[in-house]
Amino acid sequence: MKYPQVLQNLIDKLANFPSVGPKTAERYAFHLLQQSPEKSQDLAQAINDLAKKIIVCQSCLAIAESNPCSICRDQNRRQDILCVVENLQDLIAIESTKQYPGRYFILGGLINTITEIQPRDLNVNKLIKKINKEKIKEIILALNFTLEGETTALYLNKLLKGHLKVTRLAKGLPAGSNLEYADELTLSSALQHRNEIK
Amino acid sequence: MKYPQVLQNLIDKLANFPSVGPKTAERYAFHLLQQSPEKSQDLAQAINDLAKKIIVCQSCLAIAESNPCSICRDQNRRQDILCVVENLQDLIAIESTKQYPGRYFILGGLINTITEIQPRDLNVNKLIKKINKEKIKEIILALNFTLEGETTALYLNKLLKGHLKVTRLAKGLPAGSNLEYADELTLSSALQHRNEIK
Repeated sequence: MKYPQVLQNLIDKLANFPSVGPKTAERYAFHLLQQSPEKSQDLAQAINDLAKKIIVCQSCLAIAESNPCSICRDQNRRQDILCVVENLQDLIAIESTKQYPGRYFILGGLINTITEIQPRDLNVNKLIKKINKEKIKEIILALNFTLEGETTALYLNKLLKGHLKVTRLAKGLPAGSNLEYADELTLSSALQHRNEIK
Repeated sequence: MKYPQVLQNLIDKLANFPSVGPKTAERYAFHLLQQSPEKSQDLAQAINDLAKKIIVCQSCLAIAESNPCSICRDQNRRQDILCVVENLQDLIAIESTKQYPGRYFILGGLINTITEIQPRDLNVNKLIKKINKEKIKEIILALNFTLEGETTALYLNKLLKGHLKVTRLAKGLPAGSNLEYADELTLSSALQHRNEIK
């Protein structure tokens, strides 16, 4: 025996969420079933709104409230440095440090040889155009330190080196971490790029 | 900086799902953002359908395709035994064993002294009415072996004993389990209710 069609349909759709299997999707569906119909309709509305009302800033390609977004519009931010991030989540993460004075550019993914995501699938051409059009002196590659992130950084560095300064985020031990549990790559990088105590 | 309003709104709503925190809700929202708008709208539609099209079988109180549901309508099923379960998930679990020939009744919860769920919050009155109206000879309490399930089973047993036969599922070691890791309660129950090998 299976669930009624209308319920099974929702479970199948929720099971498409990342890392959500049929059992978790069931829990979510029953949660929706148990709450008031108004709340469920609010959620449905929010999902619909996302599909319809979302705006992409044509300057940095981030999802935003307006085009251009508040960061790209802000004349107090430095126009000569550009931080290249994979996606909006990473942008928000860096922005929340309140340390970065420049603007951003969303790459829209990372090169992946397994899932065959190639440079042409990313916003590389738009990045080149932006660099050619604007007076950017430094590109900060704020990409994941994963195989995909490293590959993409290498590719972009090769592409841009010579035209402008290309930097990456520092690789090292995270705050609150334990030397004992650090992997060799992190530790050797932290050693290599050690800073003088001021 | 926060996410655009339309995105943050969806994240907040998804964070209401059981065991979903803000980070997971973010992942879900970005998943919805990355897939095609049609798929998102399908999901919104499925949620709306759930709120509007769901039917409750007035005989067993299960969510179903029709009222009465296919199980309650089935004249080939035994009418004299009734399996009391907490919810539809448990009904489906028992039904999938294909071993139970009778009908079901959804209790709609378990007595919980901490969250103050009392017998009047459950479908106990409807159960009594059903028992009085129909020729039921045996009630199987197929409730969780948790504190809440045991409390509810004790309560229902006290209420129904004398009027009809009240049974519970066997408590014992699960299939594929290891004696070494079994808790004392399970093991002593398995010992007490040991079966003769045929």
